[in-house]
Amino acid sequence: MSFEAPHGVIAPILTPFNDDLSIATDLYVGLAQQLFEQGCAGLAPFGTTGEALSVGIDERIAAIRALIDGGVDPAKMIPGTGLSNIADTTRLSRACLDLGCSAVMTLPPFYFKGVSEEGLYRYFAGLIKAIGPDARIFLYHIPPVAVVGIPPSLAARLHTEFPEQVVGIKDSSGDWDNTRELFDIGGLIVYPGSELPLIDALQLGGPGCISATANINMVEISKVVGLFDAGDIEAARAQQDRIRDTRLTIQEYGPIPAQKRLLAMRTGDARWANVRPPLGPLSESRGQELAEALNTGQ
Amino acid sequence: MSFEAPHGVIAPILTPFNDDLSIATDLYVGLAQQLFEQGCAGLAPFGTTGEALSVGIDERIAAIRALIDGGVDPAKMIPGTGLSNIADTTRLSRACLDLGCSAVMTLPPFYFKGVSEEGLYRYFAGLIKAIGPDARIFLYHIPPVAVVGIPPSLAARLHTEFPEQVVGIKDSSGDWDNTRELFDIGGLIVYPGSELPLIDALQLGGPGCISATANINMVEISKVVGLFDAGDIEAARAQQDRIRDTRLTIQEYGPIPAQKRLLAMRTGDARWANVRPPLGPLSESRGQELAEALNTGQ
Repeated sequence: MSFEAPHGVIAPILTPFNDDLSIATDLYVGLAQQLFEQGCAGLAPFGTTGEALSVGIDERIAAIRALIDGGVDPAKMIPGTGLSNIADTTRLSRACLDLGCSAVMTLPPFYFKGVSEEGLYRYFAGLIKAIGPDARIFLYHIPPVAVVGIPPSLAARLHTEFPEQVVGIKDSSGDWDNTRELFDIGGLIVYPGSELPLIDALQLGGPGCISATANINMVEISKVVGLFDAGDIEAARAQQDRIRDTRLTIQEYGPIPAQKRLLAMRTGDARWANVRPPLGPLSESRGQELAEALNTGQ
Repeated sequence: MSFEAPHGVIAPILTPFNDDLSIATDLYVGLAQQLFEQGCAGLAPFGTTGEALSVGIDERIAAIRALIDGGVDPAKMIPGTGLSNIADTTRLSRACLDLGCSAVMTLPPFYFKGVSEEGLYRYFAGLIKAIGPDARIFLYHIPPVAVVGIPPSLAARLHTEFPEQVVGIKDSSGDWDNTRELFDIGGLIVYPGSELPLIDALQLGGPGCISATANINMVEISKVVGLFDAGDIEAARAQQDRIRDTRLTIQEYGPIPAQKRLLAMRTGDARWANVRPPLGPLSESRGQELAEALNTGQ
């Protein structure tokens, strides 16, 4: 079975927590349903935005199951499953694929720093062998957080060696030169991890983007894709300029706590503001400031 | 039950792998037994040297069980159990404590970078609550690898707040000023993560050190403690100078692959040279070079 890339905006959905910091399944399913109603092409649960590395393996599996029970089509989900070792990453990836998820997104092993490209290659080769021939993997390149990255030469080697299994890459480097280089790898699906270069990515034949801000700005970001698809590049560019400020303002306030506070304000459900340590929540007063900054900016 | 710190040299035991990269339990138990015969005060399995983060949760539990089945007293073990989230770290820590390990050693959550000290505090507070009142934790400060560290002010706050649970810290910063500052925290057990400042640590009332090089140089490092305990500081210093070169040479060749290659050469069991990706093994020729450098240096 070949992999079909969702076309449009994929949301790395936030993970809501109850006051005891267990996953708030009701809010999670509710946001997922809303994002699809707003036109999202797919979900990437448990990315960095979803506080993935603050959530245990079994917790993640239960949460993905809850989304499916809540009506989300698993074929439209690419959950993050990357841990720092093959055994645990395999267990989590296998569970997601067995639940019907179309692919999984995996970080490089991110504990040891300064490792060789050969070592990273052998890690992914071992992971693919352990998951099995039906592995469908998006590489997750996010050096600002993981420190360990996936250089284009490694992505190319992995895709060439495992064309059926290494289907794509999410590039959250924030470095367009890096993203552009990835588009030269024939057959590799490339999503930038931000809406800022969305049109550039679409023009290079990319299917869309995976953007944190999609959690609170899905409709507006999707419009860029709609206008682009309709051939109105000028209007698409104008729309992209409009959503740019929202992205930059959110980033300035710390994307995860900021978006969660905004959702708490919008929905009236204070649980949305909860984050797991080591992150801390955005205070109500800073949330007010943020809301005003967003209103002024748009 | 209060915690009694092992006095002397604790070995962060290397994790041997078969050619299929499963854990070579026979070699593991053999090395553990040998280290105790050579005078080690305790074992710290699954530290950075034990390639902990390249080993899955269930694999770690099975390996600790194998050591116990092989005759190692669990009360002399402080296994590393630190993952990046509370749920998984709790499961692994609970399993080790239930097996009778005297304490566990936990990293700070190391995925998100640049987090606040308050966020790290809340992480450890949550972890201690989740493990339960019989939690016995050594904090593991190793910023050169984990990037996220545990500043002395945080260690002090945690030990003050949870004196029974946060019993000590391993300081692998390589920064003596940091280690010395930790010794000012009353009641906190401090092990430097190297034998280089061993006498300084003993003079400040510390129980010893936890050193990677103990895997291949246990007898010689232990002599420093023996001489110090006998009151012969001058001879202890001379011995510490002698072992210094070994440490520095090993570090230069990459401590994990280097020591594994040396063990492969010493034992004649080639499996000892295996490492898990993303690390790569030290080649045989480099191993020869290393052995010669060690012979010349001593």
